[in-house]
Amino acid sequence: INSGGESSKESSRSSTPVLAADRTERLRDKMRRRTESGDHWFSLEFFPPRTASGAVNLVSRFDRMGSGGPLFIDITWHPAGDPGSDKETSSMMIASTAVNYCGLESILHLTCCNQTKEKITGYLSKAKHLGLKNIMALRGDPVGADWEEEEGGFNYATDLVKHIRCEFDDYFDICVAGYPTGHPEADSYDEDLRHLKEKVDAGADFIITQLFFRADTFLKFVRDCRAIGITCPILPGIFPIQGYQSLRQLVKLSKLEVPEEIMRVIEPIKDNDAAIRNYGIEQTVGMCRVLLESGNVPGLHFYTLNREVATMEVLRQLGLWIEDPRRPLPWAVSAHPKRKVEDVRPIFWASRPKSYIYRTQDWDDFPNGRWGNSSSPAFGELNDYYLFYLKSKSSKDALLKMWGEELTSEQSVYEVFTSYIKAQPNCAGHKVMCLPWNDEPLAPETNLMMDELDKVNRRGVLTINSQPTINGKPSDDPIVGWGPPGGYVFQKAYLEFFTSSENVTVLLKVLKKYEPRVNYHIVNVHGQNTTNAHDMQPNAVTWGIFPGREIVQPTVVDPVSFMYWKDEAFALWIEQWAELYDDESPSRMIIKYIHDNYFLVNLVDNDFPLDNCLWQVIDDMFELLDNPPEEQPTEQPVEQPAEESPVEDQSPK
Amino acid sequence: INSGGESSKESSRSSTPVLAADRTERLRDKMRRRTESGDHWFSLEFFPPRTASGAVNLVSRFDRMGSGGPLFIDITWHPAGDPGSDKETSSMMIASTAVNYCGLESILHLTCCNQTKEKITGYLSKAKHLGLKNIMALRGDPVGADWEEEEGGFNYATDLVKHIRCEFDDYFDICVAGYPTGHPEADSYDEDLRHLKEKVDAGADFIITQLFFRADTFLKFVRDCRAIGITCPILPGIFPIQGYQSLRQLVKLSKLEVPEEIMRVIEPIKDNDAAIRNYGIEQTVGMCRVLLESGNVPGLHFYTLNREVATMEVLRQLGLWIEDPRRPLPWAVSAHPKRKVEDVRPIFWASRPKSYIYRTQDWDDFPNGRWGNSSSPAFGELNDYYLFYLKSKSSKDALLKMWGEELTSEQSVYEVFTSYIKAQPNCAGHKVMCLPWNDEPLAPETNLMMDELDKVNRRGVLTINSQPTINGKPSDDPIVGWGPPGGYVFQKAYLEFFTSSENVTVLLKVLKKYEPRVNYHIVNVHGQNTTNAHDMQPNAVTWGIFPGREIVQPTVVDPVSFMYWKDEAFALWIEQWAELYDDESPSRMIIKYIHDNYFLVNLVDNDFPLDNCLWQVIDDMFELLDNPPEEQPTEQPVEQPAEESPVEDQSPK
Repeated sequence: INSGGESSKESSRSSTPVLAADRTERLRDKMRRRTESGDHWFSLEFFPPRTASGAVNLVSRFDRMGSGGPLFIDITWHPAGDPGSDKETSSMMIASTAVNYCGLESILHLTCCNQTKEKITGYLSKAKHLGLKNIMALRGDPVGADWEEEEGGFNYATDLVKHIRCEFDDYFDICVAGYPTGHPEADSYDEDLRHLKEKVDAGADFIITQLFFRADTFLKFVRDCRAIGITCPILPGIFPIQGYQSLRQLVKLSKLEVPEEIMRVIEPIKDNDAAIRNYGIEQTVGMCRVLLESGNVPGLHFYTLNREVATMEVLRQLGLWIEDPRRPLPWAVSAHPKRKVEDVRPIFWASRPKSYIYRTQDWDDFPNGRWGNSSSPAFGELNDYYLFYLKSKSSKDALLKMWGEELTSEQSVYEVFTSYIKAQPNCAGHKVMCLPWNDEPLAPETNLMMDELDKVNRRGVLTINSQPTINGKPSDDPIVGWGPPGGYVFQKAYLEFFTSSENVTVLLKVLKKYEPRVNYHIVNVHGQNTTNAHDMQPNAVTWGIFPGREIVQPTVVDPVSFMYWKDEAFALWIEQWAELYDDESPSRMIIKYIHDNYFLVNLVDNDFPLDNCLWQVIDDMFELLDNPPEEQPTEQPVEQPAEESPVEDQSPK
Repeated sequence: INSGGESSKESSRSSTPVLAADRTERLRDKMRRRTESGDHWFSLEFFPPRTASGAVNLVSRFDRMGSGGPLFIDITWHPAGDPGSDKETSSMMIASTAVNYCGLESILHLTCCNQTKEKITGYLSKAKHLGLKNIMALRGDPVGADWEEEEGGFNYATDLVKHIRCEFDDYFDICVAGYPTGHPEADSYDEDLRHLKEKVDAGADFIITQLFFRADTFLKFVRDCRAIGITCPILPGIFPIQGYQSLRQLVKLSKLEVPEEIMRVIEPIKDNDAAIRNYGIEQTVGMCRVLLESGNVPGLHFYTLNREVATMEVLRQLGLWIEDPRRPLPWAVSAHPKRKVEDVRPIFWASRPKSYIYRTQDWDDFPNGRWGNSSSPAFGELNDYYLFYLKSKSSKDALLKMWGEELTSEQSVYEVFTSYIKAQPNCAGHKVMCLPWNDEPLAPETNLMMDELDKVNRRGVLTINSQPTINGKPSDDPIVGWGPPGGYVFQKAYLEFFTSSENVTVLLKVLKKYEPRVNYHIVNVHGQNTTNAHDMQPNAVTWGIFPGREIVQPTVVDPVSFMYWKDEAFALWIEQWAELYDDESPSRMIIKYIHDNYFLVNLVDNDFPLDNCLWQVIDDMFELLDNPPEEQPTEQPVEQPAEESPVEDQSPK
C-alpha cells in the first residue's frame, strides 16, 4: 500500500468549491451555525455491537439513519469491551467506520477512571489518526466497587477534559455529560452543577444530558446551568421508551426514577412490546415538542439503543427527519478531515463506495478538480477488502437462494442479473436483492432505464453500473440532483457490463460507427485492454454548474483507475459467487468460466445533449450477432486469449 | 513583483486536459505529426524592426498573421543591431514577444561567427529563460572582409550546432540553412551538401533553404540531400517577389541569379509596384503548387520581408491560410513552455491579454483547473505596463480625434463609448476604433449584444467587457466555439462597466431582487468593495464539455484578481485618456472626476439555461432612477465616499 508520493504535490488544493462550510466546519461551529439560524436538528447515540455480524448490521443502520440528516452520532465506550482495539466491534473501530465510511460526524466516548495518562493519550492519538474529531469526556464507572481517588490520576471527567486540551490543544471538540437530576454520586444537585461548570471551564464545548422523563426537568436544569454561568449548548438526552425490560435496565443503571404517570401506563401493557413502543413514541414526541417550543433547545439527542423504528418515528412526527436529504455530491462524502477536499472519484466504485474509501485510505491527498492521469496514486491492495464494512449483509444461505443453488449454464447467470434488475423473484421464487457488485437494490435513477437494462441482461450483457444522460436538471431534482441550490447538474450516459468475448468482437466493429461520440474501455481478467480514450485522459461523466462557483466534476471515467477496478470487479465473481459452491461443482465452473473469459466493458456517450445512444450500440451489436454479414467468413474474436475454455463442454449454450 | 510562492504548491498540475499535444509538443514533433498526417502547413520569417513604433506594428502584424495558422515564425539575427539586448527592437525581444504575448511557436536565428563561446552561451541561456525553444543556427557573415578561421572558435554553423547540443543537450530544436544552389562561398555544390550533412549529423532537426526561383532547383536539392543520407525535413524558403528594389537587394546579398524568364517579365514593369507584386504572387503560387504536388514538400517557409499582403494572398490561393482557426481556448494561449498548462484566466483581462501575460510573467505555475481563491499569486506591478506590446497602436492625435479634442461633460464621455460600440463616427466625424480598455474593435460575440450595449452606454453604464449567455453550442461554432471538436461550450452572461455612485446606489437595491441568480462585485478606485460572492470563491463563466475529457473552465470571475484588475482599469482612465489633455483643462478634470467617483461593476447571470437577465437588471435600475418611490426621501448613495467632488461645478450634468 502506497500513498502515492507523486500525487501529493500534484493534487493538493487549498479549497473545495462545494459546500465548503458544511464539510470543513468543526462540530461546535456547525452546531452554533444551526442554532443561530434557528432550525432544529437531532443527533443519535449508538453502542458498539457484540459480534461481527452485529457490526455489519450496525454499519448499514448508520447508512440508513444517516440519510435522515443527524448533525452527529456518538458511540459509547465500554472499558470491559476492549473499546480502543482494532477489533471490528470496538468503540474505536465503529466510530472510525461511521466517520470514514458512512460520512457521519461522530463523537467517540472516552472514560478515564482507572486509566493511566499514557493509555488515554494513546487512545486519543489513535482517534486523531483515524480522523475522529470529537470526544465525549466521561469519568466512567469504576471497575469493581472499591474505587477511590488516585493521586494525579483521572478522578473526574474534568481531569480528562484538561488532559485532552493539554495534550491535543484545540484539535478535538469536547462534549461532557450533564445530569438534569444531579449525578447519583454527587453530594447534591448544586454540587453537581458546580462540577459541570468546572468541566466546561476546563474546555468542554457542549453538554449532552442524561435521559429524563419530563420536559420541566430539563428546562429547569438549563436555567440552573445558565444561572451559574454555563453558556455552552446543552443538548437534552432523549430516551424513547421501547420496551419494558430495556426501560428497567436503563433505569437501574442510571439510578433514575420513572415518574408515576409513566409507570401507570406501562405496567398494564408490559408484555405488549408494540403497545409500549407506541406509548414511548407518543410520550417522547409530546415531551420533545415542549422542549423545542421552549426556545431553549436547538437540537435533540436520542438514545437509540441501536434501534431504528421508535427514534425515526419520533423524528418524523417532529418533522426533523430529512426524507430527501440534499446531496452535496453525487456520492456520499467521507467525514475524515483529510478527505474534506475530495471532490472527484472514478465512477467504477459507485456501488461500492466503502471499498473505494478503503482502497484509498492511505492517500495523503485527494484529487480535487482534476483527476490527473499521470499522477494517480496507487490503490490499496485487494487482499483484505473483506473488512466487515464491505461484507455482504446477506448470509451464504440467502445468497445461494438469490443467485442460484445450482447453475446449469451461463444463461442461468443472466437470469440472476435480470431478476435483480426487475426486483423480481428468480425461477426458484426468491427476490434477488443484491449482486456481488451491488449490495443494495438499484438506485432510483437506474430505475429510469430498467426496461433497457432488462433487455440487454437477458442476452448476456451483464450490467453492473450505469447512469442515464442528464442535460441540465436543477440541482434540487429529487432523483438526480446534488450540490447547492440554484445550480444545474449534467451527466454523460454510462454503461458498464461483463460480456463474452464473442460479443466483444462484434461490439468493437459496431463501436467504429460511434467514433468519437462513444468512449470505451474493454478489458479482461488478464488485463488485455482495448480503448479509444484520448491519451489515457479521464472523462468527466458527472458535473454541476452552480451560482457563483467553479465547475464541479465529481465523477470521472479514469483509464488508470479502471485497471484497479477491473481487478476488484473480476475478483468478486470468484470471491463472492463461485466460492458459494463446492470446489469442482458445475456451478463454480460456470462462474469461473465467466471470470476467465468474459470482458469488462465500459461505454460513455459523450453527446449529453442528445438521447443516450448506448442502448443503440448494444442493439446494433445484437443485430450484427443475429445477422452476420454473409460474404465474410466468421472471424476469430480479436480479443479472445488463446486459451482453452475448460467448461465449454459442460456448459450448454 | 512576486511569483507567489504559496501558489506553486497549490496549483501545480501535471497535465492539461485540452489539446495537450498541440500545446506540449516541441516543434520538431509537431512538424513530424503534421507531415505524417499529410496536411500541408506554412511558416513565416520576419526581421526585427528598426524603431519602437515599428516594433508595435510588427507585434500587431504577428497577431494578424498568427491568426492564419503558421506552424511557426522565425526572427532573423543581425549582429550589428544589438540582437541579444533588452531593447524592444532586438531579435531576442521580438522573438520573446512572439512566443509569450502572441502565442506563436518561434525560432530565433543566431549567428556565431566572430563570437565567443561565452557570448553565445549567454544568448542561448537568455533565450531559454524567455521561453524560446528553437534556434536557427547560422554562421553569419563575417564583420569586415578579413575573416578567417579561428582556432577553437565558431567557424561554421556546425560548430554552433555542436555547441548548442553540448551546452543545452536536447532543450532546443535546431534548424540549419540549406542552399539549393550551393553556398556562395562553398568550393562546390557537392562540398556544400557535405557541410549540410555535417550540420545535421551534429544535431540539427530540420533544414530551411535559401530562396530560389524554380521548383526544380529545390526538388533536385532535396533528392541530392536524401542521396547523401540527410533524412530530416527540408523546408523550401519561398520568396514572393514584392518589388523591384527589394528583389535586387536580396539577390545581391544572397548572390543569387534571377532567372531570365522572370527578369524578362519584371524589367518592363519595374516602376509599377502593384504589377510586380501581382506577378510575384502568381509566380509564387505556381511554384508552390509544383512543390506541394511533388509529395516531397510538407510545408512552405515564407520570407515575408515583414509584409503581409503578398504572402497572405499566396497562402489564400494555395488554401493554406486558415480563415477561421479553431481556438484551443477562448483566449489566446501563450507559447512559453511554463504556460503550457495554463487553462484558466480571470475574465477581466479578456481585452488586454498581453497585459495579463505581462503581469503574471513571473508566476512559477499557472492555475490549472481551479483558480483557488486563497492562493492567488501576486500580480506584477502596474508601473511598467507601458511596454511596447501594450502600447496603443494609435497616435495621441488619432486618440484625441476618437475620444474628443475637448470634453464638455460626462455625457460626452458616454458618447465616445456609444460610438465605439456602434462602430460609428463620433460627433466630430471620427470612427472610434478603440477605448483605453479595448485596443481592438468589438469581438464578434459582443456584436450580438450591440443594441443593448448601445442603450445602456448612452445612459452612463460604460461597458468595458461583456459576454452573452451560451447554453451548449457546438465547440466548432464559428463565433463562440473553442476547444476540440465534438464538444459543447457554455457561458454565463457577464457585464462589466463603470457607472456613477448614484447609479450604484439604485443598482444595489435592484440586485436584491436578483439574489442568488446574479453575482456582483462593485468597487471604486479607493477599493471600497461590495459583493455577494460566496466566500470569495471564483465563479466559472466559460466552460466546455468535450468527448473523453475532463471539464475545461478557462474563464472565471475571481474576486481576488478583480481587485488587481480594478487598479489597472481605473488607471487607464488617467494614463490613457486624461493625460491626452492639458493639466488643468476641463476635459482632463472630467475624466479625473469619473476616475475618482465612478464605480467599476461586474455582474454574472448564473442561470445560463435561461435568457440573460443582466439587461433587465440595468433596465430595472433605469426604471427606479426615473421613477423613484415617492414616499421615501432621497437616500444618500450608500457607497459614495465622503469626499468632495472637485469638478462638480465645472462638469454640467
